[in-house]
Amino acid sequence: MATIRDVAKLANVSTATVSRVLNNQGYVNNETRKRVNDAIKQLNYRPNDVARSLFKGRSKMIALFVPDIKNPFFPELARAVEDVTNKHNYTFVLCNTDDNLDKEITYLNGLQQKSVDGLIMVSSTISQEDIKNISVPIISLDRKFSSEVSSVTVNNRKGAEIATRYLKSIGCKRIAHICGPQSASNSMDRLKGYLDVVKHESWFLSSYVVSGDYRFQQSFEITREMLTQHPEIDGIFVGNDLMAVGVLKATKSLKIKVPEELSIIGFDGISIGETTTPTLTTMQQPIYKLGVRAAQILLDHINNPNHDIIQEEWDVTLIKRDSTK
Amino acid sequence: MATIRDVAKLANVSTATVSRVLNNQGYVNNETRKRVNDAIKQLNYRPNDVARSLFKGRSKMIALFVPDIKNPFFPELARAVEDVTNKHNYTFVLCNTDDNLDKEITYLNGLQQKSVDGLIMVSSTISQEDIKNISVPIISLDRKFSSEVSSVTVNNRKGAEIATRYLKSIGCKRIAHICGPQSASNSMDRLKGYLDVVKHESWFLSSYVVSGDYRFQQSFEITREMLTQHPEIDGIFVGNDLMAVGVLKATKSLKIKVPEELSIIGFDGISIGETTTPTLTTMQQPIYKLGVRAAQILLDHINNPNHDIIQEEWDVTLIKRDSTK
Repeated sequence: MATIRDVAKLANVSTATVSRVLNNQGYVNNETRKRVNDAIKQLNYRPNDVARSLFKGRSKMIALFVPDIKNPFFPELARAVEDVTNKHNYTFVLCNTDDNLDKEITYLNGLQQKSVDGLIMVSSTISQEDIKNISVPIISLDRKFSSEVSSVTVNNRKGAEIATRYLKSIGCKRIAHICGPQSASNSMDRLKGYLDVVKHESWFLSSYVVSGDYRFQQSFEITREMLTQHPEIDGIFVGNDLMAVGVLKATKSLKIKVPEELSIIGFDGISIGETTTPTLTTMQQPIYKLGVRAAQILLDHINNPNHDIIQEEWDVTLIKRDSTK
Repeated sequence: MATIRDVAKLANVSTATVSRVLNNQGYVNNETRKRVNDAIKQLNYRPNDVARSLFKGRSKMIALFVPDIKNPFFPELARAVEDVTNKHNYTFVLCNTDDNLDKEITYLNGLQQKSVDGLIMVSSTISQEDIKNISVPIISLDRKFSSEVSSVTVNNRKGAEIATRYLKSIGCKRIAHICGPQSASNSMDRLKGYLDVVKHESWFLSSYVVSGDYRFQQSFEITREMLTQHPEIDGIFVGNDLMAVGVLKATKSLKIKVPEELSIIGFDGISIGETTTPTLTTMQQPIYKLGVRAAQILLDHINNPNHDIIQEEWDVTLIKRDSTK
């Protein structure tokens, strides 16, 4: 493989000049520039990216932090971010944090040492204090963790409100909510949106709200319990689709007919909701688009050190399928 | 942040000596080594990994190629590989190839330039010829593509045979197969295992085999068609679980009772099979374990340039759930 020295020799210039041409930095006259570029072409020279990153303090590498790629919400986000970064010749690093702050900090330090160019974080645990020494741009995705960090999220509260109002509009008179973990800001915003609609209803009981963990199995169990204690419930707004699949399963095991006796609406719009019988009505997030926007804003911040903080909040869309009347 | 020069100054040695201590290379006497290590500690010095990788030709970075992280088989593999690489302080790079050879080649070249240390590839399109210039270890995962490359796979043919025999043993008399794409070696091996059991049966018809694409939607459609044309079918071995969820959905839309009138068995053991009603009987692959083994073998190959080729083939396990009699 040709080296920078071979290029310099053929073009009859110093390696420093070749370097200036490669990095588009400093003055090189046009005739010399052409000679260097011809030599690069002739020798099929490809600069070593490791050397380049040492020189520039950049690795052409960006990282995405997610709690767990096995949760089916995250592969679509990851795919979107990777599609954008790949298109711009960035290497895509994936980190599973398990919502564990120590793991997040360890990843942050390790990636800084590797001169990562920027980070996209889905995090419920990180705070502004934890990232104050990080010198590269960070985008928070799905969950906001600081007003000083650019973010791409959805309007969770409004989405939850639309979902709950929709259940009312189709005739539900006792509407329950399976909410996500308290540590996740999006989960708490969805709870607020639900409460905005129901808290002044005469029928509202605090036991109509139960806490899930955004996963299938626990949702199945707590829904069975809730519906056994409260057979009057005729509508459930569920904090995410994966838990809503657990709710559907619980209704089948209790022989409750959906949607005839009980209407169910989820949140997220992941593809599993199209595979169930009945298919799942849901508040659809533009998941792929959110990932794309986070990656685009990150690349913008990397290339423009004097960027503004951008906080985008996207709307979610009611998708009516067969789990609601 | 402290630099290598600060460490050298405090320890009263040259930067070359600090480098020898850091990289555990060349002779350094014990007293000097202690002085350097004390200085590193005192200054909280962390070597820049980019400089280290330039020096060593290594990036402490490994990459996993998958067709598409959105296919629910791959997040569990990716999680396993990342868990192992993270434990050994390697950065985990994820590449979505869409089973597109051009994309794979572009990733390979890009990662070589970035001094990637090794690769794990799930690929149906790559051949030995395509990787002959790749100088770092490669492990093929899930699908074998060369006898010269270490691999971690399962015994697909035997697994398919067990699945089909099981359908016979519970009384199925007309057993169909939805197979995966012809380009995937694992899909063709599963087809062979099915044929091993049924091809000499008097009832066997070639129209009992239809080709899917390992996805949900197409499987739903081709199953509806097949079951409408062949209502005598009372058992289906499906090439993967995602397609089996499509088969379940098709039976519901045709009001065929599972398992009373038709038994269904999938392949993979991904978690979606536990969420369906009925739950899905399947041939379970040790998915997480496969990812862990691929990563362990890769790290072994990285650290031992004179390694042997290792080709591990794991067994799959019949998991009886509610979609079979």
